[in-house]
Amino acid sequence: MENFIIQNENALYYEINYSCDHGLFLALGDKGYFFTDGRYEVEAKENIKSNKYDIEVQITKDLIRSARNILKKYHKLSVIYNPQDFSVYDFEKLKADLKINFLAKPNFHQEKRMIKTKDEIELLHKSQTLNNEAFKKFAKYISKKGENALEFFLHFKSQSFLTHKGKYDLSFNPIVGINANAAKPHALPSNDKLKKGDLLLFDAGMKYQRYCSDKTRTGYFSKNGLSFKKEQKFKDAKMQQIYDTVLKAQETAIQGIKVGMLASEVDMLAREVIEKAGYGKYFVHSTGHGIGLDIHELPFISPKSKVVLEEGMVFSIEPGIYLPKEFGVRIEDLVVVEANGARILGE
Amino acid sequence: MENFIIQNENALYYEINYSCDHGLFLALGDKGYFFTDGRYEVEAKENIKSNKYDIEVQITKDLIRSARNILKKYHKLSVIYNPQDFSVYDFEKLKADLKINFLAKPNFHQEKRMIKTKDEIELLHKSQTLNNEAFKKFAKYISKKGENALEFFLHFKSQSFLTHKGKYDLSFNPIVGINANAAKPHALPSNDKLKKGDLLLFDAGMKYQRYCSDKTRTGYFSKNGLSFKKEQKFKDAKMQQIYDTVLKAQETAIQGIKVGMLASEVDMLAREVIEKAGYGKYFVHSTGHGIGLDIHELPFISPKSKVVLEEGMVFSIEPGIYLPKEFGVRIEDLVVVEANGARILGE
Repeated sequence: MENFIIQNENALYYEINYSCDHGLFLALGDKGYFFTDGRYEVEAKENIKSNKYDIEVQITKDLIRSARNILKKYHKLSVIYNPQDFSVYDFEKLKADLKINFLAKPNFHQEKRMIKTKDEIELLHKSQTLNNEAFKKFAKYISKKGENALEFFLHFKSQSFLTHKGKYDLSFNPIVGINANAAKPHALPSNDKLKKGDLLLFDAGMKYQRYCSDKTRTGYFSKNGLSFKKEQKFKDAKMQQIYDTVLKAQETAIQGIKVGMLASEVDMLAREVIEKAGYGKYFVHSTGHGIGLDIHELPFISPKSKVVLEEGMVFSIEPGIYLPKEFGVRIEDLVVVEANGARILGE
Repeated sequence: MENFIIQNENALYYEINYSCDHGLFLALGDKGYFFTDGRYEVEAKENIKSNKYDIEVQITKDLIRSARNILKKYHKLSVIYNPQDFSVYDFEKLKADLKINFLAKPNFHQEKRMIKTKDEIELLHKSQTLNNEAFKKFAKYISKKGENALEFFLHFKSQSFLTHKGKYDLSFNPIVGINANAAKPHALPSNDKLKKGDLLLFDAGMKYQRYCSDKTRTGYFSKNGLSFKKEQKFKDAKMQQIYDTVLKAQETAIQGIKVGMLASEVDMLAREVIEKAGYGKYFVHSTGHGIGLDIHELPFISPKSKVVLEEGMVFSIEPGIYLPKEFGVRIEDLVVVEANGARILGE
């Protein structure tokens, strides 16, 4: 077994079934050391479990120093760490005069988590199922009371549905964009009012037992209200054409997914549909991202990704077309790669 | 003028009136370089302003590399950075083969922001004023509908008041603790029900124009409802005695604040009251922390802090007593140091 040191909360949780915002885990073969301070002692001792490591919990005011004290006893040992997860300050203090060979491996822990277990897939499915419920309730609310609501208020209100009134955490700050605001790649809620005939983009997710969901729908607010179903009828012909293009791109990519493909090939499936329709330059991001304990993890479904798809990988498929100062359309689902192709989660 | 490099969002905002989650600012004397990617180009160019620096905005996919390209032209230049704000990954990439003398100064930017300007004090005052309104509304809500409400639901509901229905951001995840949960130093919301005769601790804040507020009250939920006023009447004599002790500690510290004192002396003013009452070992944290753009910044009001108080410093005074498995009491206000002593913000 390899030796490594982590402090990222999701990496901690994955390894030892517990995390807090002041924790450090050192794995040396099958021996594990978890360091935290007195505030977390009871919780840590109650919750930590592992079938891989024999874990010793050390309560300390100085986590890094306590880890150093363990590592001091070793010579010529190699220990993996993620240089993106440690500040210069902490890492300099950790390594100082130790005779340890620290191996910098960016994303090594996300790589470890790239293939999900059956249990993890079930949690992601449940998370997206609860997220779907929130989308339905939010659409119903908008249909009834959305007219003339301010965008920032809708953004606020959506969180009540997403968290199921405070029961669950958000997986990220949701995006609610009306018309031109839907074309901004990182829309912050504005004071614009929702009116009949408007397009509304909603990108949101929550967490179930720490596993993230994520979904985007673009809907048309007609006199009959709004739905976040994939079928949408816009009054404006250009909106409809662009919506249909994005939907075709999304469905083409999902249907084309097969074990053994490159992630870049999946990206290309979506990208080609949009390019052929003449909107290639308005699809300004990657087709998707892995998801799990982190909202964004491996594999990335991008033009450059050389990851080979395997059973158990879970990622989003979310092409979009954004016409600056006009409107934007994005449609996103989560899929799991199975032996026969992709299955959409939450359905 | 000094040279420095920053990427922390609050540090960026302080220097150039703009920040985003993918930005880097390099100050070389009175010349400034701001690096960000294409998503933020329009916003950055519209919002950046400074009366200290002549700022060039560079749009780039690789912020660190672009900063390197500027620094390559210099030899023997000293540039300050905060080793807590840079990951090992980014910093190794930045410095590589440059002939720059990077000076590690932990917290150098918080030190720079420790004395607040009149405008900043006004924003902090406004932020706490809006926070006070939220406390009042939340107390009114609890008085009417709080009986049998679940703790996690009250935690959820409080955010509606704190954000003024989505208009403002939270400055941190609020704490709502009933009885024994109020004694946990980092209480997460539980399924406990609020009942008449319970003690409720509420620690919360929001942001106004990016400046944080923060306040804690401990209230008694009687048959007449609940208030977050400082005057509280508990049925239980021990609760009352402990509440009165914490209140006396808090007021003693605030009244004792004077320009020229050490921060540790302020801590001692509160701590002595609690120690004399015999609860010293149940006051497990520092008396307060600085506040501004960050929710926790300098100066820390702790037993070890050697900071000398100056006019314009703003910090919390928040002593507490926590009896494990029984209950906890904390009372917190924000004060600004003025020529004649401390003034409570938001009043």
